Amino acid sequence: MKKEGMLVIISGPSGAGKGTVVAELVKTEAFALSVSATTRKPRPGEMEGIHYYFYDREAFEAMQKKNQLLEWAEFCGNYYGTPRKYVENQMAEGKNVILEIEVQGALQIKELYPECVLVFLIPPNLEELGRRLTERGTEDKQTINRRIHRALEEMEFVSRYDYVVINETVQKATKDICAIVQAESMKSSRNPKIKEQFKGEIELC
Amino acid sequence: MKKEGMLVIISGPSGAGKGTVVAELVKTEAFALSVSATTRKPRPGEMEGIHYYFYDREAFEAMQKKNQLLEWAEFCGNYYGTPRKYVENQMAEGKNVILEIEVQGALQIKELYPECVLVFLIPPNLEELGRRLTERGTEDKQTINRRIHRALEEMEFVSRYDYVVINETVQKATKDICAIVQAESMKSSRNPKIKEQFKGEIELC
Repeated sequence: MKKEGMLVIISGPSGAGKGTVVAELVKTEAFALSVSATTRKPRPGEMEGIHYYFYDREAFEAMQKKNQLLEWAEFCGNYYGTPRKYVENQMAEGKNVILEIEVQGALQIKELYPECVLVFLIPPNLEELGRRLTERGTEDKQTINRRIHRALEEMEFVSRYDYVVINETVQKATKDICAIVQAESMKSSRNPKIKEQFKGEIELC
Repeated sequence: MKKEGMLVIISGPSGAGKGTVVAELVKTEAFALSVSATTRKPRPGEMEGIHYYFYDREAFEAMQKKNQLLEWAEFCGNYYGTPRKYVENQMAEGKNVILEIEVQGALQIKELYPECVLVFLIPPNLEELGRRLTERGTEDKQTINRRIHRALEEMEFVSRYDYVVINETVQKATKDICAIVQAESMKSSRNPKIKEQFKGEIELC
């Protein structure tokens, strides 16, 4: 019987480096990346179907009504959501699915799938977060301030996540998340058939 | 404030390769190895204070009475136990302590320290276990058979362990356990102060 895939959810404040770390993970690990749907406007360089599926509000609300989203949330005036079918198919086929979503959505999914792994990615400190958001250069000062305040609000949820990873460097954070996935795959609760596998073919004496 | 060390307990059937893996771990990680006390006779090459502290039954029972053992058990006619003071001191100083003990003792400790990490190390299958025990050449056929039966009995407890590691090669098992320790150190439950650390020195705007 095929072992079901693991669902790994990465959240964390805007500017924590989630996108970069997730891109790195998808390169080095056997992950299927779940692409979110959003009504947010694309940032320069962001591509349809790669970074997000971009929808207008009407189309997004139609998906909500048809129960085609695993979770959805409104954040800074935009909808974000996870198309259900893709995630469920991949997991059933034994693939790990990685999902980059914000706190409300992550906690919704944890209720549906208690065995999913919630990872909260944070920059080393608030100062560094401010620096990263400023350097990105795509948002005005007011948006950056809103994001910093939002980051502080989100930190209140960190204890409801399974793991917290400090993104000092992309390389280290990527390794940390790989270690988490590796460790999780060895949890005895994820290996209920291990006794039978161990007994194998041998005739007991 | 110093973060308290982690207590990592390795159990598994005789012949699983616990000793070799633990020795490798102590080399590569910042672990303090807890040396057990036993009334078992030393095997060729085993050294006092390195592999075990060897006691006679009378001396061992005196330690039991004085509550100087964190746990103890009788197994195949011999006592095995963990001197309490060393483990508690190391953890208080922020060091990870690695402990190689059998199932009964491990479960006793899990009750005392629910935050300890229980790792069950097994060979790929029973056949391989038989082969390893035979190759070791230190035990007669009857003892080997008894150990194989004991291994099967111990496998009943695998679900009460946090992790199960299959020892295909020493190198892989060592890496697996390092990943477990790395992942555990990032658990949000082990990082209750993370919010404060994140806020750091910045003046909130």
